Amino acid sequence: MEIALVKRTSLKGAGCPVARSLDAIGDWWSLLIIRDAFDGVRRFGAFQKSLGIAKGMLTTRLRDLVDLGLLELAPASDGTSYHEYVLTKKGRGLFHVVVALREWGEDHLYAPGEQHSELIDKVAGRPVGRLELRSGDGRVVGWAGTTVRKLAPSPAASAAKRPRRKTAGSGKV
Amino acid sequence: MEIALVKRTSLKGAGCPVARSLDAIGDWWSLLIIRDAFDGVRRFGAFQKSLGIAKGMLTTRLRDLVDLGLLELAPASDGTSYHEYVLTKKGRGLFHVVVALREWGEDHLYAPGEQHSELIDKVAGRPVGRLELRSGDGRVVGWAGTTVRKLAPSPAASAAKRPRRKTAGSGKV
Repeated sequence: MEIALVKRTSLKGAGCPVARSLDAIGDWWSLLIIRDAFDGVRRFGAFQKSLGIAKGMLTTRLRDLVDLGLLELAPASDGTSYHEYVLTKKGRGLFHVVVALREWGEDHLYAPGEQHSELIDKVAGRPVGRLELRSGDGRVVGWAGTTVRKLAPSPAASAAKRPRRKTAGSGKV
Repeated sequence: MEIALVKRTSLKGAGCPVARSLDAIGDWWSLLIIRDAFDGVRRFGAFQKSLGIAKGMLTTRLRDLVDLGLLELAPASDGTSYHEYVLTKKGRGLFHVVVALREWGEDHLYAPGEQHSELIDKVAGRPVGRLELRSGDGRVVGWAGTTVRKLAPSPAASAAKRPRRKTAGSGKV
């Protein structure tokens, strides 16, 4: 276990949706909690058992995810007095992020023959295909076929930026 | 700017490719560096200008990304003595992770009418479509249509786990 001191610069105001998403998600634990929620985990104790995370840290992460609107509290599905954490539409929207991380891990981080969990299409009972990005007219588009159209910096932002040290939030957007 | 003390548990040995990917990527800065590399940034100074990250931290992150095989060093494309950082195949494999984060941010983190950068299909000069996940027989599959088939815990792993506190690496895989 390693302790890392991480200096976080807010990217909340970024004009780049990638940066803003990373800022909103917060840290890896949050994404692992979301992954577990996709897998059907709903209760504090079950998240704790699955992740092996300290209770205080899990409490904070779950509260943040509720505050961010990724999870919401619901009465226990079995009628007991427990409450459960359920993905909102915004939380479910992270499905492709989790799938893309899965694909990359499967492609690059396992030795030949090393086993890992698999994402199964419920109807066919077989592994799903791969994520695909297509153009408006249906061509599969890869990285080399794309470019990012950036926002022109607003005159106000440029003026405000000049006398200060740049922060990540004012950088590439 | 906030300082967060983050306790990292290694997920390197996880049987879940999502966890293993998150462990390998390290932190958000690494993914923002990769995003910049996708956008054509190749030099230390250009990454620094784009990200507004401290030089020491950028040096560490770039070295880690080279060690992980996501970036490789190449001679400067203009023949000067600088060197450049170029995405490897493994690094380029993160394209869909970055695109998925972009889509989620576009969907959920911008106010109506608020502008953001866009991913453009070079051929058509228009925004790309959306990532799609399909089954083997071509149906579009969403979260509700999938389930994760987990690895059965190995007897050795279960025995080793019992007397200790669980770590994230030994949890849901």
